[in-house]
Amino acid sequence: MIITMRGDSKSSDQQLVIRHLQKRGYQTHMLSGGGDVVIGVNGRPVVDGLPEEVGNLPGIRMVNRSQKPYMLAQRAARPEGTVVTIGNVQIGTGAPVIMAGPCVVESMEGMIEAAQLVQSAGATMLRGGAFKPRTSPYSFQGLGEEGLQILALARDLTGLPVVTEVMEPEQVDLVAAYADMLQIGSRNMSNFPLLRRASASGKPILLKRGFSATIEEWLMSAEYVLAGGNDKVVLCERGIRSFDTATRFTLDLNAVPLVRQLTHLPIIVDPSHGTGRRELVEPMALAGIAAGADGLILEVHPDPDNALCDAQQSISAATLDRIVTTSHAIATLLNPTPATIPHLTVSTAA
Amino acid sequence: MIITMRGDSKSSDQQLVIRHLQKRGYQTHMLSGGGDVVIGVNGRPVVDGLPEEVGNLPGIRMVNRSQKPYMLAQRAARPEGTVVTIGNVQIGTGAPVIMAGPCVVESMEGMIEAAQLVQSAGATMLRGGAFKPRTSPYSFQGLGEEGLQILALARDLTGLPVVTEVMEPEQVDLVAAYADMLQIGSRNMSNFPLLRRASASGKPILLKRGFSATIEEWLMSAEYVLAGGNDKVVLCERGIRSFDTATRFTLDLNAVPLVRQLTHLPIIVDPSHGTGRRELVEPMALAGIAAGADGLILEVHPDPDNALCDAQQSISAATLDRIVTTSHAIATLLNPTPATIPHLTVSTAA
Amino acid sequence: MIITMRGDSKSSDQQLVIRHLQKRGYQTHMLSGGGDVVIGVNGRPVVDGLPEEVGNLPGIRMVNRSQKPYMLAQRAARPEGTVVTIGNVQIGTGAPVIMAGPCVVESMEGMIEAAQLVQSAGATMLRGGAFKPRTSPYSFQGLGEEGLQILALARDLTGLPVVTEVMEPEQVDLVAAYADMLQIGSRNMSNFPLLRRASASGKPILLKRGFSATIEEWLMSAEYVLAGGNDKVVLCERGIRSFDTATRFTLDLNAVPLVRQLTHLPIIVDPSHGTGRRELVEPMALAGIAAGADGLILEVHPDPDNALCDAQQSISAATLDRIVTTSHAIATLLNPTPATIPHLTVSTAA
Amino acid sequence: MIITMRGDSKSSDQQLVIRHLQKRGYQTHMLSGGGDVVIGVNGRPVVDGLPEEVGNLPGIRMVNRSQKPYMLAQRAARPEGTVVTIGNVQIGTGAPVIMAGPCVVESMEGMIEAAQLVQSAGATMLRGGAFKPRTSPYSFQGLGEEGLQILALARDLTGLPVVTEVMEPEQVDLVAAYADMLQIGSRNMSNFPLLRRASASGKPILLKRGFSATIEEWLMSAEYVLAGGNDKVVLCERGIRSFDTATRFTLDLNAVPLVRQLTHLPIIVDPSHGTGRRELVEPMALAGIAAGADGLILEVHPDPDNALCDAQQSISAATLDRIVTTSHAIATLLNPTPATIPHLTVSTAA
Repeated sequence: MIITMRGDSKSSDQQLVIRHLQKRGYQTHMLSGGGDVVIGVNGRPVVDGLPEEVGNLPGIRMVNRSQKPYMLAQRAARPEGTVVTIGNVQIGTGAPVIMAGPCVVESMEGMIEAAQLVQSAGATMLRGGAFKPRTSPYSFQGLGEEGLQILALARDLTGLPVVTEVMEPEQVDLVAAYADMLQIGSRNMSNFPLLRRASASGKPILLKRGFSATIEEWLMSAEYVLAGGNDKVVLCERGIRSFDTATRFTLDLNAVPLVRQLTHLPIIVDPSHGTGRRELVEPMALAGIAAGADGLILEVHPDPDNALCDAQQSISAATLDRIVTTSHAIATLLNPTPATIPHLTVSTAA
Repeated sequence: MIITMRGDSKSSDQQLVIRHLQKRGYQTHMLSGGGDVVIGVNGRPVVDGLPEEVGNLPGIRMVNRSQKPYMLAQRAARPEGTVVTIGNVQIGTGAPVIMAGPCVVESMEGMIEAAQLVQSAGATMLRGGAFKPRTSPYSFQGLGEEGLQILALARDLTGLPVVTEVMEPEQVDLVAAYADMLQIGSRNMSNFPLLRRASASGKPILLKRGFSATIEEWLMSAEYVLAGGNDKVVLCERGIRSFDTATRFTLDLNAVPLVRQLTHLPIIVDPSHGTGRRELVEPMALAGIAAGADGLILEVHPDPDNALCDAQQSISAATLDRIVTTSHAIATLLNPTPATIPHLTVSTAA
Repeated sequence: MIITMRGDSKSSDQQLVIRHLQKRGYQTHMLSGGGDVVIGVNGRPVVDGLPEEVGNLPGIRMVNRSQKPYMLAQRAARPEGTVVTIGNVQIGTGAPVIMAGPCVVESMEGMIEAAQLVQSAGATMLRGGAFKPRTSPYSFQGLGEEGLQILALARDLTGLPVVTEVMEPEQVDLVAAYADMLQIGSRNMSNFPLLRRASASGKPILLKRGFSATIEEWLMSAEYVLAGGNDKVVLCERGIRSFDTATRFTLDLNAVPLVRQLTHLPIIVDPSHGTGRRELVEPMALAGIAAGADGLILEVHPDPDNALCDAQQSISAATLDRIVTTSHAIATLLNPTPATIPHLTVSTAA
Repeated sequence: MIITMRGDSKSSDQQLVIRHLQKRGYQTHMLSGGGDVVIGVNGRPVVDGLPEEVGNLPGIRMVNRSQKPYMLAQRAARPEGTVVTIGNVQIGTGAPVIMAGPCVVESMEGMIEAAQLVQSAGATMLRGGAFKPRTSPYSFQGLGEEGLQILALARDLTGLPVVTEVMEPEQVDLVAAYADMLQIGSRNMSNFPLLRRASASGKPILLKRGFSATIEEWLMSAEYVLAGGNDKVVLCERGIRSFDTATRFTLDLNAVPLVRQLTHLPIIVDPSHGTGRRELVEPMALAGIAAGADGLILEVHPDPDNALCDAQQSISAATLDRIVTTSHAIATLLNPTPATIPHLTVSTAA
C-alpha cells in the first residue's frame, strides 16, 4: 500500500500515520522531498478497511493499494520524477549528463590526461575503475586505494565529480571517502548485502543492470537502496546477454522508455560495455539519447589502442566530442525546454 | 574470392574472366550497377596462384580472397552502398523512408482511410497484410487475394507504393502481381525455397530478421536473394527474443550500425513488432533513426484500440505525424547533405 | 470448448452434436480413436448456457470450457496418450524407438552401408536427408528425388521405415511418395502452409521444435496438423538457442516431462543436433530416455570423420550400439511393463 | 604453462622448480594429492626455451604450454578427476551423492523432521538455507545464525553433513563454524571477493552456476577458489535463463558431460531450482544422473504445499525415496564398478 501525504502536511501528522500503521504491525518506508511525501507500507497483507481508515487521517492526499513489488521505486510514488544531484551535476532534468573516462585507473599522469580530455569534450562527470571485477584471478584487478586517490586528485584538478565501482560491503566506506557516486556493477546487481551497505552510505548510487536481469529484478535491486533510506539512485542500462555473439553484449534500449514509464528514477546508457565495439559506441550513444535516456557513461582513452583494459571499446577524444555535441542537439530537439527540478531527498520512518 | 572489375571494362573482358573461372570449375555470381562490377567466385577452394592469375586479365581493378560467407552481400562488394528504388521511393540515400499502415487489411473503407492517414502524416510507403502467419490455426489468416486488390486500390488512390508479406513459394507470383515490394516475414527468414522464388520475381524484397537469427544468418538469407540475381534487398530489424518478457520482443538496435558496417544493403527498423507496446514505438523509432537506420516500418490504425490484430502496438495518426517530423530532423542533424545515389542493378553470370 | 463423447456413442449422435454446434456458428474438429471421441469447438466465443445445452445431448460424457489454445493437442483431449504407428514401429508405448542414419544421403552404397549398420545396432527406423535446408546458398543442398529413391531402396532392403525432411508445400506429395514419415525441420516449425499440406498428406509427421520456439508455440504448430485431420504427430526436441556457445545448441530436456504433461503426443529427442558435439551425444541420449522420452533420432555414419555434413556430431556404429542397449535398460528400469496401446486415428468433422 | 611432477618426486625438487620460476618473475600455483603434483605457472608470458629448461630439472614428468584460462581447473591438471570429501561423504567416485532438505530453515522442529526424512530416504547430505538471497527487500531473509545452529543440531542428530549458503565475505567465518560445506549461490558466482574468502576458509565449496554464466565463466570462478589453495570444489548446474518461461529456469544438462570433459572437478545437478516445478523434479533428476552427474541437490519438505519458500518446487518424502533408489540403479547401469579414489588435497606454493 502507498500513502501520499500533502507536501505541506505537518510532521506530527506524518508521524501519526506512521504510528497508526506500526501499531497494526506494518512496516513503513518514507520517500520525501520537494513535493508530496510518500509512505510505503508492507510487512503483512493489507486488511479490509485499512485504506479507508488511513484515508481519514489528517494530511492525506491519496491511498493506493499498490500491486508493484517495488513500492518506492515505482513511478506512482513520485510521478514528477527524481533528480539526482552529484556535486554540481544534476541527472534527470531533461538535459543529458555525459560521464566519461578510462576503464581502469592506470597511472596518475594517464588519469589526469584523461580527465582533461573528458572536460575539454564537454562531459561533466569522470569515471574510472580502482577496483575491477575480473573473470580471471590472474588478471590485473585495479590499483585499489591508490586508484581512488588518483581519481580524487583528478576531481580536484578539474572539478568533475567522480563515479567509481565498489565491489564488496567492506569496501563501501573506503570508496565513499573518495568518490562522489558509487557504482554497483552488473555482476553485483543482485549482491543484496552490498546494496544495503551502499544505501547506508548515503552516497548517490549508479546501479547497473545485471546482464541477464529482467527489468523487474533491476527495479527490485533499486528498491533495496530506496528501502534503506537512500533515493539518490541512477539506473544504467549496459547491455544484456543474448544468443548473438556478433557483439559482446546487446545494448537493450527498449529498457529506456520502459523504465521511464515504470519508475521515477533517472536512467543512463553505457554503449561501451553494451556493445563492446568501438565503432558502435557513437551510433548507440545517440540512439540512447533519442530513446529518452538522461545521460551516457562512456569509456574514453587518450590512446585507445593501448588501453590496459577494454581497448577494443574505448573511444577517442574526437569521438567523445562529437557525441557530447550531438547528444545535446538531439535532446533539445526532443525536449526544447528542459526543467530544472529541485532536488528531492528520502528518509525512512524510524 | 571477390573480383572487382572497372565500371568501364569491356563486356567481352568480363566474359573472359567468367569463362576463365568456369573452366577451372568455379561458379561465378555477378553484381553490377552504376559503378564497378563485382564477381563473386565459389564452388571449390581457391587454389594457390589463382588470384594472381586472374589479376593479370584485362579490366581487373582488384582481387580479394574473401573470408565472408556472404560474398555478394558484404560491404566490400559495393562499398558505396546500395539504394533500392520502389516506385518513386528510394531507400538508402540517407533520407529516412517511413512505411506505415495497418497490421492486416480489414476492409476496403478501412484501408483507404488508413492510406490517406499515412499519406497526410508524410510517410511515403504503405504496408498492410493480406496473408498473415498466425500461430493459431483458428485465428483470422487475412483476406488473401481480396486483401491484395484492396492494397492495390489504395496505392492507386494515393500513389504510395505498397509492401506486403508473401508466405509460400506458390504465392509469390500472385503477390508480385499486386505489390511493389515483397515482405519476407521473421518466421520465414530461413525459408530458403521462398527466398529463391522471391528473388526470381525480380521485385524489391523487404527481408525481416528472424527473431532468433544471428546477424550472420540474416545476411546469409539476403545472400540467397542476391545469388538469385536480385539485389533489391532491404533488411528490417524487428526485435529478437530475449529472456525478458517485459516487452514481447527486444528491438535490437545494435544491429543497425553493425549491419551498415558488414553489408551494402539498406536497413530499416520495425519498432511496432520490435516492442509490441504502443507507448514504446515513438522513442524506439527515433532511436532507430539516431542509430543510422534508413527508414522505419510502423503499424498505424485510424482507431488503434479497435484494430483486428496487434491493437496493443498500433499507433495513432498524431503519433505517426510526430515520428515522421522528428525522424527527418534527426537524420538531418546526423547527415546534413544526404546523397542521392544512382540505382544499382545486379545480374548473375550465366 | 472440448466435448468428450463416449467411445460407444452412436455415429448419428455424434453428427447431432456437430450439427447442433455448426447451426450456432461454431467450427468443430473431431479427434477419434480406440477410446472416447473428442470434439474441439471454436470459431466464436462460447455463450452462456451452451455447455449445459450440449451436455444434455445423447452420448455425451463431459463438456469442458477449455482455456488451452491447443484444443486438440492438449493432454485432456486424449488422457491415455497417442501411439503413432509407422510401418511395424510404434512410438508412444513406453519402449524407446531409435531412429538413426546419416545427416544427408550421399550415395547409394553409403546409404545401404549406413542402413545395415543402423539395423545391426538394433535401431528400428532409418533417417537421412534428401532435401537439406542450408544457411548458405552455396552449400550442397542434397540429392533431391534421387536421394528419396535411395532411401526407399534402403528401406526395402532392411525393412526399416524411413523418415526424411520436407521443406516446402509443393514438395509434400513427392516426399510422401517415398517416405514413411515426413520430418518438419526446426526452421520450418512455423511454416504454416507447409504444416497444412503435410497434415493433408495423412502421413505420420515428425515435428521438430523451432530452436527458439516456446513450448506453447510448438504445440500450436502441432495443432495445425491435428486441426487438418491428421493426429499422427511425433514431437522432437532438438536443442534451443541460448547465450552459451560452448555447444551449438542447448538440448532442452525439460521439454520432455513438460510436453508429456501438456499433450498426448509422443516426444523424442535429437541429441545430435541438440548438442552438435559427438562426445556429448551418448550421455544426452541416455538423459533423454531417463527424462521420459519415447525415442531418439541420431546421426550415425560408417566413417564419421568423413561425413559430408555434420561430421562433428555424427557417432560411430559402436556408440549407436551402446546407446540402443542402455536406452532399453533405462526405459525398463523406469517402466517395467510398457503397454502396447491400440493405434488411434483422427478425423475432422465435415 | 602446466608442469606435472611425479608423485614420488622429492619435496626439495619441487621447491627447486618453484624457485626457478619465481626467480624469472612467474607466479606458481600447486595442486597436489594422491598422484602427480601439478604446478600452474602464470603472471607473465612464457618465453621461448622455458619449457625445455624446466623439463630438464629433476622430478619432472611433463611440461605443457596450456591455452586454457582455467589452468588449475582444467581436466589436464588432474586427468583422473577430483574426489571431494565432506565428513563421511565422497563426491566424484561414480556413486551418486544425494543432498536434500528444505529451501530455508524454518524452525528447529521442522528442520529435525526434514533431516530424518532425508536420512530415511537414503540421501547422505543435508541442505537448508539460513541466509537467503531474496529479490525483494521485504521478503523473509532467513533465520541467520539461529538457522545455522539448527542445521548443526540436525547434523549432530543424524550424522548427515550440512551444506548451506554464504552470501558475503564477512559471513564466511560464521557459516564455516557451523557448516560442513559452503554453498556459493547462483547470483554470487561472479562475486570474486566472496570466492576468495570462501577459498581461504579451506572448507569444501559447492559452486552453483550463475543462471546466465557460460561454462567458461563458471570454470573461471572455480579457478578463483583453486588459485586460493582450496581444491575441494563441487560444481552445481542449477538452470539457466532462456527465452521460454514455461519453466522458471532451463536445467542445462548439456553442462554435465561438457564439464566432465573440461575439468577434473565433480558436478552435481539441482533440478528443483533448475525447473521450479515439482512435477519435473523427478524426471530431470534421473536425466541428470543418466547424463553422468556425480550427485543431486533437491528441495524436499515434510509438507511441500506449506513450505515457507519455493513451495511449488519442493518434493515429498515419497518422491525423494524413489529418486534415490532409481538414481543408484541408473548409475550402476552406466558404471558397474565405481572406483573409490583416494582424496586429493591442494596447496599453493608460498
